[in-house]
Amino acid sequence: MGRILCAGLGPGDPDLMSVRSDRAIRAATHVAYFRKKGRPGQARRIVEGMLLPGAIEYPMEYPVTTELPFDSPEYIHCLATFYDDWADRLATLAQTEDVLVLCEGDPFFYGSFMHLYTRLQGRTTVEVIPGIPGMVGCWSATGVPITWGDDVMTVLMGTLPEDELVRHMQTADALVVMKTGRNLPRVRSALAKAGRLEQAWLVERGTMPGERVMKLADVDGTDCPYFAIVLVHGSGRRPEVQE
Amino acid sequence: MGRILCAGLGPGDPDLMSVRSDRAIRAATHVAYFRKKGRPGQARRIVEGMLLPGAIEYPMEYPVTTELPFDSPEYIHCLATFYDDWADRLATLAQTEDVLVLCEGDPFFYGSFMHLYTRLQGRTTVEVIPGIPGMVGCWSATGVPITWGDDVMTVLMGTLPEDELVRHMQTADALVVMKTGRNLPRVRSALAKAGRLEQAWLVERGTMPGERVMKLADVDGTDCPYFAIVLVHGSGRRPEVQE
Repeated sequence: MGRILCAGLGPGDPDLMSVRSDRAIRAATHVAYFRKKGRPGQARRIVEGMLLPGAIEYPMEYPVTTELPFDSPEYIHCLATFYDDWADRLATLAQTEDVLVLCEGDPFFYGSFMHLYTRLQGRTTVEVIPGIPGMVGCWSATGVPITWGDDVMTVLMGTLPEDELVRHMQTADALVVMKTGRNLPRVRSALAKAGRLEQAWLVERGTMPGERVMKLADVDGTDCPYFAIVLVHGSGRRPEVQE
Repeated sequence: MGRILCAGLGPGDPDLMSVRSDRAIRAATHVAYFRKKGRPGQARRIVEGMLLPGAIEYPMEYPVTTELPFDSPEYIHCLATFYDDWADRLATLAQTEDVLVLCEGDPFFYGSFMHLYTRLQGRTTVEVIPGIPGMVGCWSATGVPITWGDDVMTVLMGTLPEDELVRHMQTADALVVMKTGRNLPRVRSALAKAGRLEQAWLVERGTMPGERVMKLADVDGTDCPYFAIVLVHGSGRRPEVQE
């Protein structure tokens, strides 16, 4: 009887994964990871050079999506079937083998692995190794602490409606905005309305080759890579209390 | 000419620090860390058994605080002087040696190291190795994803006024409350007013020996350890969008 182990890979630099994930990846004989069809996949790229020579790989390729809107019932059904099928395959494999699933960042923080995790409950042993979330790699790249003292930090998705983005941007001290990409114009507009645009940074590919750190106000483009994160640092509400 | 390197230690389990921090700690000849007077210190405890036999240690002991209120001008001055002195000592040492500073969790996320980091700017080379924040270790311990889909996550300090806690607890999907300890009654009351108490978890010493994971509503005590974190998981606003 095997088990399924999901290894959080951290923000992208292989040196920033945990000692436990590093060890598990170097010992794994069956390795699964998500990727877009025809792409090497970010998770697989992070572990390049680390896998055993004989390791068997299971690229879990997202169904092709160009024809269907992301929020259409058809697409949602298509994706659910995809996760169902892979949960079945991994559960069957885990009857005889240990299976390692790779997951960028931390698996429990907006991770795609959760779609398998929920489907695998009660069917096989599933363990998760935490990782440094991508946002931590991004704020480290700015060289400025993201929060201190009594700062409130809010994590937002760029897919949210603009009025909701504005409301949260006005009430939190530190901000992290993920899923930027094509949503960048709305994120920029919301930051401006909340009076936070001048403090905002855009970090592309944090801790990875090609890392770029820019003030968002200086960025001309209306688009950015999917792995880009917008940050506003907190300023520390009052001196930190030591308990 | 040496440099100062701050190693994020992650949530507590030494296996969960990054490969880079692990390597830096095992090679360090000068190691500094914060602790309370008379205590071994959490950071030092995490690296037990990892330091070189001849490594020189610099415990940075917080000034004794029992007589002064935490928010009094005297205490704030006392703490500023303490950070000034250690920044001077480490900057002097870094003229000839590499110095490693240990920091629990991620140094840029509510880390005490930032008080040295800001004081050391322009005086010596300072590098920071990110770590898995303590909250990530705590939500991993619950075995439930903290966020998915378009969830909004807000991180709050238990030291904030109750009305502000309530406001954020009502508008975010996932919640993390740090600096609980003696503030737990206020945190509990705020969660109840926001209608979130039944969903809340209390995680003590996440990933460390003595880890405890409980529903907050089942906890009788009005106090909890400083390393305890209150969590409310998000429920996923809509199916995750794949880009």
